[in-house]
Amino acid sequence: MKRKSIDFTLYLVTDRILSRGRSTLEIIKAAVRSGVTVVQLREKNASTKYFVEEGLQIKDFLKNRGIPLIIDDRIDVALAIEADGVHLGQDDMPLEFARKILPDESIIGVSVGSAEEAIKAEKGGADYLGLSPVYSTSTKTDTGPPLGLDGIRKIREKVSVPLVGIGGLNHKNSAEVIKAGITGIAVVSAIVAAEDPGKAALSLKEIIQRAKNET
Amino acid sequence: MKRKSIDFTLYLVTDRILSRGRSTLEIIKAAVRSGVTVVQLREKNASTKYFVEEGLQIKDFLKNRGIPLIIDDRIDVALAIEADGVHLGQDDMPLEFARKILPDESIIGVSVGSAEEAIKAEKGGADYLGLSPVYSTSTKTDTGPPLGLDGIRKIREKVSVPLVGIGGLNHKNSAEVIKAGITGIAVVSAIVAAEDPGKAALSLKEIIQRAKNET
Repeated sequence: MKRKSIDFTLYLVTDRILSRGRSTLEIIKAAVRSGVTVVQLREKNASTKYFVEEGLQIKDFLKNRGIPLIIDDRIDVALAIEADGVHLGQDDMPLEFARKILPDESIIGVSVGSAEEAIKAEKGGADYLGLSPVYSTSTKTDTGPPLGLDGIRKIREKVSVPLVGIGGLNHKNSAEVIKAGITGIAVVSAIVAAEDPGKAALSLKEIIQRAKNET
Repeated sequence: MKRKSIDFTLYLVTDRILSRGRSTLEIIKAAVRSGVTVVQLREKNASTKYFVEEGLQIKDFLKNRGIPLIIDDRIDVALAIEADGVHLGQDDMPLEFARKILPDESIIGVSVGSAEEAIKAEKGGADYLGLSPVYSTSTKTDTGPPLGLDGIRKIREKVSVPLVGIGGLNHKNSAEVIKAGITGIAVVSAIVAAEDPGKAALSLKEIIQRAKNET
């Protein structure tokens, strides 16, 4: 079965802790209505039952809008709620097992922090790569050194799958990252921790599209 | 496909923290050589990658000995390592999703703390039930009140699937629990925290089999 082509322009990664008391569904609704093109649901400390129940609600909202839902790490949850795919960190399910377990049409993204990891993940069948971290970030502390614009350019030369940048990206630096060869911008805090997540998504989307038009 | 029939007599549930510095594989090897009939691998705080790699090693050891491997909660890990089944707590993957995702031949056990939960899980397709907790235990604190022997007898009357008792079970009280109608004894500390896990498994197995012969 052919894999769906995804618009990675503005990729929202959720984080319940950083959402300032607002529910993840509430954040997603506001962000998607304001231009987010793909959502990754991430729950590092929830029970499987909670993750599945939350995922079903979110899937329900997103499928009517044609926005793909990617599940962080948990292939069991992705299978249960029939999500569009999974995103795998270097400590998550190894790619070869994920490809074997998931239906052929599932999207699999892999986090990479170097050209070597990028080449390996593309060879292993990753549909897109999450370049992490682009800049230093307080959201995720278990990462390697920031890639910066040079790191992005190096990886862009080596692989041909779509590249999503993540880590410290915001309204100020997203344009330069797009111009360095990134397909889409992934953000956590810049949307989920914003005073107005919808407004934050809208202006980020405009910045990214303007940068894409100039590239 | 027909589901494998499992000997639940002595059911080891692993716990890395309680293992006193010994590896889970080391504990399992000693316990299986001394009569453990089924192993549940439980990793509540490991990365998925660690869980899969550890699970592959353990599966490799167990399959040559015909001892089934059950994975706690994580269906993704069970699928990756082709485990014999999963065990689901009340906060884990809901049974209906687990049954849908797993191959038909997979064993699914469900933890229950009352006759109502037991009836529901049997109706939902559970292959066996984990009655929890039989007695109070410090290993698991997120449980309901202890079932005791009366609680076991009540559940035994209502359902026909095999029943595994867990919670505070040891060399002193396993015989009475078997006589109350339990199919098998599940232990954590009584084996993993024992000075000599192999010796602990051996004497537990003798106690259980003697009680079964007298029942």
